[in-house]
Formats: sequence, structure tokens, C-alpha cells
Amino acid sequence: MAVYTEISDEELSRFVESYGLGQLLSYKGIAEGVENSNYLVHASSGTFILTLYEKRVDPDDLPFFLGLMEHLFQRGVTCPLPVHDRQGKVLNKVAGRHAAFVTFLEGVWPRKPTAEHAVEVGRAMARMHLASQDFAPKRHNALGLTGWRPLFDKFSARSDDIMPGLHKLVSNELDVLEQNWPRGLPEGVIHADLFPDNVFFIAKKLSGLIDFYFACNDALAYDLAIALNAWCFESDFSYNVTKGRALIKGYEDVRPLTNDERAAFPLLARGAAMRFLLTRGYDWLNTPKTALVARKDPFDYVRRLRFHQSATSLADYGCEVAG
Amino acid sequence: MAVYTEISDEELSRFVESYGLGQLLSYKGIAEGVENSNYLVHASSGTFILTLYEKRVDPDDLPFFLGLMEHLFQRGVTCPLPVHDRQGKVLNKVAGRHAAFVTFLEGVWPRKPTAEHAVEVGRAMARMHLASQDFAPKRHNALGLTGWRPLFDKFSARSDDIMPGLHKLVSNELDVLEQNWPRGLPEGVIHADLFPDNVFFIAKKLSGLIDFYFACNDALAYDLAIALNAWCFESDFSYNVTKGRALIKGYEDVRPLTNDERAAFPLLARGAAMRFLLTRGYDWLNTPKTALVARKDPFDYVRRLRFHQSATSLADYGCEVAG
Repeated sequence: MAVYTEISDEELSRFVESYGLGQLLSYKGIAEGVENSNYLVHASSGTFILTLYEKRVDPDDLPFFLGLMEHLFQRGVTCPLPVHDRQGKVLNKVAGRHAAFVTFLEGVWPRKPTAEHAVEVGRAMARMHLASQDFAPKRHNALGLTGWRPLFDKFSARSDDIMPGLHKLVSNELDVLEQNWPRGLPEGVIHADLFPDNVFFIAKKLSGLIDFYFACNDALAYDLAIALNAWCFESDFSYNVTKGRALIKGYEDVRPLTNDERAAFPLLARGAAMRFLLTRGYDWLNTPKTALVARKDPFDYVRRLRFHQSATSLADYGCEVAG
Repeated sequence: MAVYTEISDEELSRFVESYGLGQLLSYKGIAEGVENSNYLVHASSGTFILTLYEKRVDPDDLPFFLGLMEHLFQRGVTCPLPVHDRQGKVLNKVAGRHAAFVTFLEGVWPRKPTAEHAVEVGRAMARMHLASQDFAPKRHNALGLTGWRPLFDKFSARSDDIMPGLHKLVSNELDVLEQNWPRGLPEGVIHADLFPDNVFFIAKKLSGLIDFYFACNDALAYDLAIALNAWCFESDFSYNVTKGRALIKGYEDVRPLTNDERAAFPLLARGAAMRFLLTRGYDWLNTPKTALVARKDPFDYVRRLRFHQSATSLADYGCEVAG
């Protein structure tokens, strides 16, 4: 939870006015997102989220994220729609921060995801992948394969402080991933962070996707592997085959995986577990215990990684594999 | 800012249903209030605030606060209206906490209060005082005259750590207040915490009062003295006579002060400064620097207290005093 930057009523009133959104009626800092400051804004023309981008976000990436949301929205993917100001701009500055208004999306994210949620998530992800095929801008995945080793180098010397044996585990796994990472899979824009708190539902029906601030170009099936890590493990770290099967089935309802993608899936899932293990490991050692933002335990992803290491095909995830 | 207690989507859906509010559409923890957890809830029937009462609030006081809000609302004082559940109750339990729904009040609180704001605040306070005259329940002011010495005793030994000389200043002032505190002034229900962040405006028009969780029975003019401390000093601690005059005038537009109240005002203002000096002083020494809630500097109220000590009549606050 986080509101880092305060904005005054007068400043926000003027800002709302510059978008032609009518009169400012109320605004509340909301305890959501760990990277940016977010306000829920009621104006006479509707309800919006104002995001003030904090230091961890590269301003040069913002046109990509905002352009992507607009592109997806226009193609029927329910997501927040960036609002253009009177001059036509979606990105501005206020309270000393880069800032954007997006439309407010109703929905609640499921604290206890079920297979019914997972199948909808799979479908929505595939629709997003298809809808972004003609999105021209590109963004490199800084947290993809080539980013993992440099990130590990930043804390590898202290990694066994997190868990004895972690250094060896990660070093060996990075070797495997770097040597065997699949090439030539279908690529496109991936969400790259489609965790339950980024998917809204109203009465079991998916109402929208949010938080595209990790979106980038990468293998589409890698996005599915991230979601499988995020949605299909229980709090005791066991893989829930019913949810996993539902997620993948939902995805394939809209966009069937290629044979290469199916064959590569266990390795993609290992890579996805590694990506979150590494960022959580780094944050674990570098986030003060007293910070506003709760640290997330890297161990969750050690356990996931071990599961994926034992998998040899999609059959191990509960899916039929053509003989 | 604070969201201390998490509530799950399923739990909240059931809770919303038990109030007949329709379908839960969204909920966001909001960074407001330092005592309780607050969620802004969109349901199909409207927008509400869900408050989960945390440890610092005495559950026995909740019927007073909620009953007062309902009483005031019904008499035309714009404030959040507690919602009755299907059984007619306004107070329930959820997520392990006492909890209540109130209607959401549009408006923004003024970061830079002006005399125009102050006059409206004075009027709204006086209307609240009149509207609560027939509110039967009573609540003792634990932070009134009799509460100050015991509160100071809790940190007096360390009070000079806050500011050299603070111990002597407070001890002497408490002697004066205890010996001279005015008796027999008109009493009633006071808000007791009507700071700018508890008064909402839309386009310079007051849209409502919130946060009645310090409300209690005490001298009405003492409430005005609290508001004067809260609204009419600049960030350099100087008294702004234009705002002070506007606040008192606004109050008297609706409820003229009695001669006794006018005569007692400087002492009431000293008491009000003392009350905030003491709670801030205690919190200063007892809130970890790393806490989610920012500590407020007790020094602000030392400076206000010194101003009030120099005042001898309402004339010193910019008001005409009958010769």
C-alpha cells in the first residue's frame, strides 16, 4: 500500500479542469500499488484513477504503457482507459510527478482464486495477446532472461542470508535457463505481472485487467507461465492441477498454444519462477523492514521453481499432450 | 494514512449483502484516518465508506458516534449517514473488527484554508451544536480538563526531551487552567476535532463534516476554540485575524455567543491548545519513528498556546467586544 506524493485540492482541481473532467468532487489516496501513488478521483464527469509516477518508473516507458492501455481498450480488452487532456495529451506533470488519469474500473480481485477465475484469466490474457499484435511500440523486457544474471549479481553475495543454499540453487538454475531458453516462440506484448490483484471480477465474471506497468515484448507463452505461477499454487506451495488446467484451457480457448510453446512450457515456468524469486530476493535484502510496503517472501518462488524443475511436459501441469 | 485490517472480497460481498446494498462492485483501502481502517466501497446501490474500528477506539463509544451522525443527518447537518443492515443494526462485526457502513460524502478538504472556508466552518459548527441539543446519549470528554493532568503524567518525565522547558510550561499552564476553567457555560455535543481534514468543500461551498470519533459533551464554545486553533494559524504559527474573525462571525451568524462564553474565550483557546499539545506530546514520545502514521509536531501548539496566553478578550482575536 502506498501514497507517497500528496497533492493539494487546488492543484488537483486545476488538473481535473485541464482534462475537461468537470468539477472535482472528492479524491482519496488509495492503498494500492507498490510503485506509484494512486488517487481515486470523483469528478462531475465520472470516476477516475490519478496515478503519480514515482521514482522507480522510467518516464520514457510511460508512453508505451499508456499507449498500450488505450490500444487494448479500443480493441475490446477491458482495462483502464487513459484520458486525454484538452491538448490531447495523456501524460502530464502535477505535484512534481509525471501523472496520468485513467478511467476507474469496477471490480474486486479474488483473494482466493478458483478454477473458475483461472479459466477467465486465461481467456483474457489470450485476448490481450491477440489485441496487441498490431501495437507498434516495443519495450524490452528488462526482467527477462538477459536481466536475471545482472540482477542476481547485485545480491548474490548475500543470497544465502535469505535461505541457506540459495546461491547454489540460483546459480545452477541460471546456467540451465541460459543454455536452454527457448528461442523463436511467438512473441508480442505480454502483461508480465498478471497476478490476482491485477484482475478484477464482479460476481465471478472478469471485469477487467489493470496495472500494465511491467508490460513488454516477450514470448507470449512466458506470460502464461507467469500467470500459472501466480494463480495456480496454494498457500502450502502445492501446485493446484485443477486451476492450472483451467488457466491453460482458458488461454487455448482463445489462442491455442503451438507445439513449440507446449514443449517449452516447463522451462518457461522455471524462468517465470526465477524472475519473481530474483526480484523478491533483491527486495528482501534491500527493503527496510520498516518500509510502508510489505516484503514478499522469495521462498514462495523457490518452492514453485522446484515444482517446475520436476516437470517435463505440459502433462505435468494437468494438460493432455498429443502422443 | 492507514489500512490496518484487510478484508477479503468474499467476506465483504457477504457483508454488503447483509445490508441490502446490492452487489459489491469494488473496494479500495483509503489512506485516511489514523485510528481506523477505511474502505471506499462501490456497490450497485451507491458509494459507501466501510470503517473497521481498530484498537484505539472503545467499542462502547460506537453507538454514541453512529447515533450522533444519524441524528445530525436527520436534522439537516450534512455528514455521513450510518447504514442500517437488514436487521436494523448500524454496528456489526467483520474481519474481526467492529464495523459500520456510512454513506460516502463528496467533497475535498482545503489544504490552504481561507477566511471564506472559516466562515462556513463556523456556521456548520453552530448548526451542529443546535441540531444536537436534543440528542439524548452522553459521552464524557476524556480529553477535557480532567483528562489533561493524567495524560501529562504519562510523559512529563520525558517532556523536556521534546523541547527544553516544556515541563515547566505545561505544569504552570495546567495549574492556571485547573484554577480558572470556566464553569456553567452552555454545553452540548461538540465535534472536538473539527480540523480542516474533517470538513469537505465543493467549489468553496461546505459539503459536509466527517469524523465524529472524538465527539463528546462539553462546553460548546470550547469546540469553537478548538476550531480556531485548527483553522486560524498560519504555518509560521502567526494568528490570522481575518480567518479568526470569519470563523467566529460564521458561528455567531447561527448561534450568538453568550457574554460568559465571550469572556471565557481566551481561556478556552488555551485549553484547546493544551489538549492538542498533550496528545501530540504523548504521541511524539510513544510513536515509533517508523510508524505508518506521521507524528505531528507538538511545538505547533506551544506556539498557539503562547498566543492565547497573551490574549485577554475576544478583541485580541479580532472581534468587537461590547464596551
